[in-house]
Amino acid sequence: VRIVCAQLWPRIGELEANRERAAAAVALAAVDGADLVVLPELCVSGYVFEDAGEARRLAEPIDGPTIEGWREQSVRDRIVIIGGVCELDDDGRVRNSAVVIEGGEVLAVYRKAHLWDREKLVFEPGDEPPPVVETSLAKVGVGICYDSQFPEAMRMLALAGAEVIAVPTNNPLLSPELEPLPGELLMASTTAIVNRVYVAQADRTGLERGVEWVGATAIAAPGGQLLTERVRGEGSVRADVDPALAREKRLSERNDALADRRPELYGAIAASPLRTPG
Amino acid sequence: VRIVCAQLWPRIGELEANRERAAAAVALAAVDGADLVVLPELCVSGYVFEDAGEARRLAEPIDGPTIEGWREQSVRDRIVIIGGVCELDDDGRVRNSAVVIEGGEVLAVYRKAHLWDREKLVFEPGDEPPPVVETSLAKVGVGICYDSQFPEAMRMLALAGAEVIAVPTNNPLLSPELEPLPGELLMASTTAIVNRVYVAQADRTGLERGVEWVGATAIAAPGGQLLTERVRGEGSVRADVDPALAREKRLSERNDALADRRPELYGAIAASPLRTPG
Repeated sequence: VRIVCAQLWPRIGELEANRERAAAAVALAAVDGADLVVLPELCVSGYVFEDAGEARRLAEPIDGPTIEGWREQSVRDRIVIIGGVCELDDDGRVRNSAVVIEGGEVLAVYRKAHLWDREKLVFEPGDEPPPVVETSLAKVGVGICYDSQFPEAMRMLALAGAEVIAVPTNNPLLSPELEPLPGELLMASTTAIVNRVYVAQADRTGLERGVEWVGATAIAAPGGQLLTERVRGEGSVRADVDPALAREKRLSERNDALADRRPELYGAIAASPLRTPG
Repeated sequence: VRIVCAQLWPRIGELEANRERAAAAVALAAVDGADLVVLPELCVSGYVFEDAGEARRLAEPIDGPTIEGWREQSVRDRIVIIGGVCELDDDGRVRNSAVVIEGGEVLAVYRKAHLWDREKLVFEPGDEPPPVVETSLAKVGVGICYDSQFPEAMRMLALAGAEVIAVPTNNPLLSPELEPLPGELLMASTTAIVNRVYVAQADRTGLERGVEWVGATAIAAPGGQLLTERVRGEGSVRADVDPALAREKRLSERNDALADRRPELYGAIAASPLRTPG
């Protein structure tokens, strides 16, 4: 299974141009033989909204032109498309969503459950856990950006059988990058190691209203190896993955990354919405 | 608070020499101004036991000479000592344990809950979650080696208020190290980032019955920065840490690494001992 993660520079508010940009990235991935392509979070609207009103004006429903275009392209280019959209849901709420599309069908719509900073002013958070989607290629788990900093969320995807975790993301560059690897790649690699899954992360690039981005687009293997080099600016990364490797959770003759869990000891993780006062 | 993590080369079965080695490492840490020292897993017995019988012969009770020595030294050198021992418990079972000692007192005994490979033939696993111990310096969480590959366990320590997570470890070198960072340092750094805690990890070194070791001794800051350089062979790493930084969980004006959790979505993490069939 060949995966491409596209690192794009959407221009905020330029819906039509950004749709064409995403479509071109998908077409290029298909030419490169990709079976599955991951696009960044909010890759058609842009990210740094002035206010909730602007996000609402740039939002579109699941049957809107972006996803209509991806559905058609998934058939034409015979490719599974996972990408982030600014969604106007059926109840008129604005969501930071990711869709999984194959063969002209929307297999899943996931609404980001962990919102970052000003997203809380703009989006309604999702109330469903990140999903695992049965595509014809692999079982694909989906999280969006900050979701991936919650190891509970990543673990749930692995427990539900995800072989590849696709992460559309927009990582603002908030502080100097960690050396030798930025935090966003450390975390992706760790998610891959501890869950024995592939992680396919598509980040954005380009200055937007004063914000720069990490550009942490990468594909990590179940052992944690980064299979791809970093991209500066627009571009993409590619790797051939074997979902069977991600079904193998054995670590040694007597160890299994998931079966060795001691969930009877982890009660506090899921039990309480508040942490113990420190 | 100055932390030293000592990377030691215990010789299997040489209890007296290994006790002296550990005592010397603690004394050296104290000379260097350390307030807290972390010693490796099983640092007095060695690790690669022939069989359960050998481990049992090398085990000692909590009131045995190793911990008796550490208690005395904690007073003499005014230092908090965290280290790994092969424990014979009150019921005659052999445990892979870590102790936290301050002011001559054993503040906690933790029995490793996640056992690695042949440890399952040798040790009785612990049935209590990793603890958080109130020392006079900081709230110290404790995990042992493979425990730290379970993000649930590390998260529990953070939720219970740990400011420093101390990890006595023995990481066998099983495959070529990941570049640019071995998995054991990736995971330590990620634990620090996602939980906003310090991680103080003490690994072992030296060939033992054909087994080599990663030597992943390190101290990571709450932002994930590795504060220390790698040690080859015996040696130690040192960093000055500020527990108050680990109490600050804010990531942005509107984000908090722990309060942003959505535990109502994480039910599967703690609910079931078995994973969904893949």
